[in-house]
Amino acid sequence: MGKGRLEAFSDGVLAIIITIMVLELKVPHESDWEALRPLIPVFISYILSFVYVGIYWNNHHHMLHASKHVNGTVLWANTHLLFWLSLIPFTTAWMGENHFAMVPVAFYGIVLLMCSIGYYFLSVSLKKLHGEDSTLAQAIGNDRKGILSTVIYMLGIGLCFIHPYIGFGLYTVVAAIWFVPDSRIEKKLHHE
Amino acid sequence: MGKGRLEAFSDGVLAIIITIMVLELKVPHESDWEALRPLIPVFISYILSFVYVGIYWNNHHHMLHASKHVNGTVLWANTHLLFWLSLIPFTTAWMGENHFAMVPVAFYGIVLLMCSIGYYFLSVSLKKLHGEDSTLAQAIGNDRKGILSTVIYMLGIGLCFIHPYIGFGLYTVVAAIWFVPDSRIEKKLHHE
Amino acid sequence: MGKGRLEAFSDGVLAIIITIMVLELKVPHESDWEALRPLIPVFISYILSFVYVGIYWNNHHHMLHASKHVNGTVLWANTHLLFWLSLIPFTTAWMGENHFAMVPVAFYGIVLLMCSIGYYFLSVSLKKLHGEDSTLAQAIGNDRKGILSTVIYMLGIGLCFIHPYIGFGLYTVVAAIWFVPDSRIEKKLHHE
Amino acid sequence: MGKGRLEAFSDGVLAIIITIMVLELKVPHESDWEALRPLIPVFISYILSFVYVGIYWNNHHHMLHASKHVNGTVLWANTHLLFWLSLIPFTTAWMGENHFAMVPVAFYGIVLLMCSIGYYFLSVSLKKLHGEDSTLAQAIGNDRKGILSTVIYMLGIGLCFIHPYIGFGLYTVVAAIWFVPDSRIEKKLHHE
Repeated sequence: MGKGRLEAFSDGVLAIIITIMVLELKVPHESDWEALRPLIPVFISYILSFVYVGIYWNNHHHMLHASKHVNGTVLWANTHLLFWLSLIPFTTAWMGENHFAMVPVAFYGIVLLMCSIGYYFLSVSLKKLHGEDSTLAQAIGNDRKGILSTVIYMLGIGLCFIHPYIGFGLYTVVAAIWFVPDSRIEKKLHHE
Repeated sequence: MGKGRLEAFSDGVLAIIITIMVLELKVPHESDWEALRPLIPVFISYILSFVYVGIYWNNHHHMLHASKHVNGTVLWANTHLLFWLSLIPFTTAWMGENHFAMVPVAFYGIVLLMCSIGYYFLSVSLKKLHGEDSTLAQAIGNDRKGILSTVIYMLGIGLCFIHPYIGFGLYTVVAAIWFVPDSRIEKKLHHE
Repeated sequence: MGKGRLEAFSDGVLAIIITIMVLELKVPHESDWEALRPLIPVFISYILSFVYVGIYWNNHHHMLHASKHVNGTVLWANTHLLFWLSLIPFTTAWMGENHFAMVPVAFYGIVLLMCSIGYYFLSVSLKKLHGEDSTLAQAIGNDRKGILSTVIYMLGIGLCFIHPYIGFGLYTVVAAIWFVPDSRIEKKLHHE
Repeated sequence: MGKGRLEAFSDGVLAIIITIMVLELKVPHESDWEALRPLIPVFISYILSFVYVGIYWNNHHHMLHASKHVNGTVLWANTHLLFWLSLIPFTTAWMGENHFAMVPVAFYGIVLLMCSIGYYFLSVSLKKLHGEDSTLAQAIGNDRKGILSTVIYMLGIGLCFIHPYIGFGLYTVVAAIWFVPDSRIEKKLHHE
């Protein structure tokens, strides 16, 4: 089964997710610089979410690029991942509009955690389809980055209840870890 | 006539339908867990609709994959299907915001029924174009799953007037039936 | 210059136009059948606009399919067409929410007229690029359907000031004329 | 690494940006021509932004067309560009709804300036990847148009504080400069 339409559909959904978040930047009625100030927290959460969706698109691109084909399980693992990603505009807005209050920041982290689990399922389903000896499986490897992210997310969610800024800071750390996402798969492919 | 742009346009519309539903999850003004409670029914209907649009994309993907070409009738059958699917965000929100009240749940079922009829028309137009002896026609076969779904939808819509939860439960049953959608066509293609 | 990305971008814009119109179907707060009644005019204008965008996509698909390449003029003619099409969700909502009042129906017609002029510019720029003797130019021919549509649109806009239903009726007539849009180009291609 | 999905993702995001701007044209409750009058400034800013996003799509199309491959740096330079472009619907609405007041017009210019810087980064990352002697690098050349645009944007932003119409006028000048964007790259490719 071809992977072309899976990529096209995912590109479409990710493009919409990354773009409709801007609709939550409510246009102020006043026309001075002051009017932009209440938007700053929404804007900051917008930046982090934009980077996150960009990272997911980037990694999705790389993983599918290294894949040769897909099956029914992969299609559903992909839909499951897109489901959690589709909640990011909601959690972004909730976190931003409440100025990084405790519960919204924790909830934002929970959705990020679910996204990373969804991505893990997708990688497992692709590995299984291509076999343990495939380039793809070797490229994904033991997924240390993924496990590390999961631990930091959980820590971040928990530490929100001390102060939400710690949680937000830790989510930023995970984003930074993934910022150069391709080295793993890219290197493997180069050494073939 | 190539099927590439039909797939691209359908992917685009389905990607937007599945994603704009999240705009109906209105961001609460409060920032505690309590604030999420009124969103639970909207969220549940969001999940079911997400699964449904996912199923339609998945089946559409498979049916078009098995098709060799399209004609004007197929293009319009496809547009007709997309029309009914485009109403899902509206019915999802109405059902969720009214906590699964009788009429919205019945209306949700009517739109699902129209979607399944639209999908049936599309499959008939593709079968007719490819001929009764084509792989596609044999793969779709006598469409027992489609007929079963139609019966359950009608039952579900009717039983809403006893209790809407019965209707909602039956729609979930249809989703479960279609969850592994590809076996029919996929098997046929494998045995060639 | 390849036509692939022009098709992809146009598919994307048309997919979004056809889908965001549903956001104007405001979810009612009540949960009985009565609550749907005020939506009927919005729904009727939604159907007509859905058919129109479907027709434009369909014809765009055919014309680009018959084209071999594009240039800068074609890109801008296409962007110009998309501009007028992008106003359809606005005019659809205005017409529907004001129950087919005179001015909104006339304005809806003006936007349709501008779309048809935009489409005409696009066909001229493609004809010029491919030459008068090309299959494309012969297939488009003297464009009787296009001229007829323009006349009916103008008539429809004018007659709105007697009664808007006449205008709306005439727009429906144009949609019906274009409903089977491909025969012209398709036949030409078949006879080669 | 293939450039196909980068183009597809960018097409998706640009298609959504150019289309959701129309959601800011709020449907008036009245149904006479008067009701459209307050929308005129929003409409004018909509036209300028539509042209701008069209120009970016057009140039992006040309630059990627002349590119042979992409790498991680290009992917992130592209995401960075899309980030600033994604703010255009917000600044367009703010500028339009405040009837071209000083601060919103200046802010609109700042976002345009950031977009042009983002585009510059993308072109640099592509030039670096393809080498100084590549067709692409020669085609982009010394980027006089880009430098000129940056100067005019800065001038425009500054002169807003004398009168915002000067700023708006200068942004229109930049749009006019870029309106025929492809000659540079297209010519180079023709002379090979």
